[in-house]
Amino acid sequence: MTQQSRRLYLNEVATRDGFQNEAVFIDTDDKIALIDQLSACGYAKIEVTSFTSPRAIPALRDAEAVMHGIARAPGVVYTVLVPNVRGAERALSCKVDEVNLVMSVSESHNRANLRMSREESFGQLRDVIGAVRGSGVAINVSLSTAMGCPMEGDVPVETVLGWIDRFAGLGVNGVTLCDTTGMAHPAQVHDLCARASAAFAPLEITLHFHNTRGMALANTLAALDAGIVRFDASLGGLGGCPYAPGATGNVCTEELVHMLELDGYDTGVNLAAVLDAAARLPALIGHDVPSQILKAGRRLDLHPMPACA
Amino acid sequence: MTQQSRRLYLNEVATRDGFQNEAVFIDTDDKIALIDQLSACGYAKIEVTSFTSPRAIPALRDAEAVMHGIARAPGVVYTVLVPNVRGAERALSCKVDEVNLVMSVSESHNRANLRMSREESFGQLRDVIGAVRGSGVAINVSLSTAMGCPMEGDVPVETVLGWIDRFAGLGVNGVTLCDTTGMAHPAQVHDLCARASAAFAPLEITLHFHNTRGMALANTLAALDAGIVRFDASLGGLGGCPYAPGATGNVCTEELVHMLELDGYDTGVNLAAVLDAAARLPALIGHDVPSQILKAGRRLDLHPMPACA
Repeated sequence: MTQQSRRLYLNEVATRDGFQNEAVFIDTDDKIALIDQLSACGYAKIEVTSFTSPRAIPALRDAEAVMHGIARAPGVVYTVLVPNVRGAERALSCKVDEVNLVMSVSESHNRANLRMSREESFGQLRDVIGAVRGSGVAINVSLSTAMGCPMEGDVPVETVLGWIDRFAGLGVNGVTLCDTTGMAHPAQVHDLCARASAAFAPLEITLHFHNTRGMALANTLAALDAGIVRFDASLGGLGGCPYAPGATGNVCTEELVHMLELDGYDTGVNLAAVLDAAARLPALIGHDVPSQILKAGRRLDLHPMPACA
Repeated sequence: MTQQSRRLYLNEVATRDGFQNEAVFIDTDDKIALIDQLSACGYAKIEVTSFTSPRAIPALRDAEAVMHGIARAPGVVYTVLVPNVRGAERALSCKVDEVNLVMSVSESHNRANLRMSREESFGQLRDVIGAVRGSGVAINVSLSTAMGCPMEGDVPVETVLGWIDRFAGLGVNGVTLCDTTGMAHPAQVHDLCARASAAFAPLEITLHFHNTRGMALANTLAALDAGIVRFDASLGGLGGCPYAPGATGNVCTEELVHMLELDGYDTGVNLAAVLDAAARLPALIGHDVPSQILKAGRRLDLHPMPACA
């Protein structure tokens, strides 16, 4: 493999992407305590919450209270999901560092997930960008289904590059390519990342993988090989997939950090601190999490007993 | 990544490595039916059973009956695990195509798993090799803990290469490097595979990964990149790890084939046929299996319902 930059930048999404999928409401104080713990872990960015309608996502109805309650660590970018201008105004009033906008690059998924066409989404997000621009708050756009749509199947690379181009034209700071339902495979990831990086540098390109079909870490290797240095990850692997009960969701932060650190990358993230935070999750959300490292321990956590065959 | 050979050779280990870890005894007829189904899937090799003492591994006490009962498919190598000369004699009487010998490259794990020193194991396996040589039956040696020992930690590459060298000197046909408890990471795998291939070609080198810490497919990519073309895999991901309840074990065949096929490799294996076989496992063993693909479906198995965020 070619030699890549060894400094990587991780964005923790569990308290937004993970918690919004949980059936229980996690107490505001517990959210704040967890985010404060995450702030000490060394992440480049934390996606704190979502300024969506409290009716649409009641799990995150306390977005303002959480944003006001957390202690901001220097050097950490605190980002929030914002669906529309109303959400952007709420986010700006909380002095977020970044807003993260989202739409799907496949029509069917955008309609299923956001209840509007892609063009309607783009128009709405263009208005958000207009409202945020000039405030000093950074703007990132997460493009869902960038490596496949669960309803349409393959999404042409040209389609993905086309949507990046439209948002780049609006002056956003970064784009996240999301493998929303774990359809990406390594050769595809390498091709998409190489082409997006070549076409849109110095736009910050982040990769967001799901482990739905077991390939999240393999896809990460492929993205690294194509020069990507920014990755989303979710503590404990929180954030499931509604059509595949029992399947894992987002790539697990501690599994990602564990592999990257062993391979000699500098993620900035303290693995022991992240594992401490992940260990709190089952009590918070009321069920087990898909993290393998939480169960098996780190590579060099040794075991005195007779071992596997 | 560099371009590697696209033709790969898979060895299915579920009926040996998987079943020996199951609490229930799987009926001989069910084993035979499953192996016959696997024989039609396109594997290069199937590890059918183990000629160990029926007292040591009662789950595989029907080794002769299974070997005699299966219908051998042309082109498939039927291999069996053999611990000693007595086991080799039993295996030879069943006209196996290959015997697979096993020892650990770390002293503590060998003592824990095989109840003897590495030198004692080597002596015993040398006797087995002597008994099998000249019979026309191929000989493979699986080296456990080749990428780390759960009791000792890191195992020096020189130690692993040293054991390969000793067995190569005895004229074995192949060596399997086993990541017995999922401690391997991609950079390590690449280094070990490159060095072993360079030093011991044309010895057939197979990689055996566990997904204990989520890295099995990422490690596979690293091994491919170093030129490896032979891999063990276990249907459904069968074969757990006693010190990490809930952690996954062997790399899951259908997850491995799914990724490799998407990335353009020719595994010889028919994914749909393997999924049909994997779907039978829960009824056979009485519990769920860790396979993600069984839960989520293949990449392009489309879903009509509203999807993930």
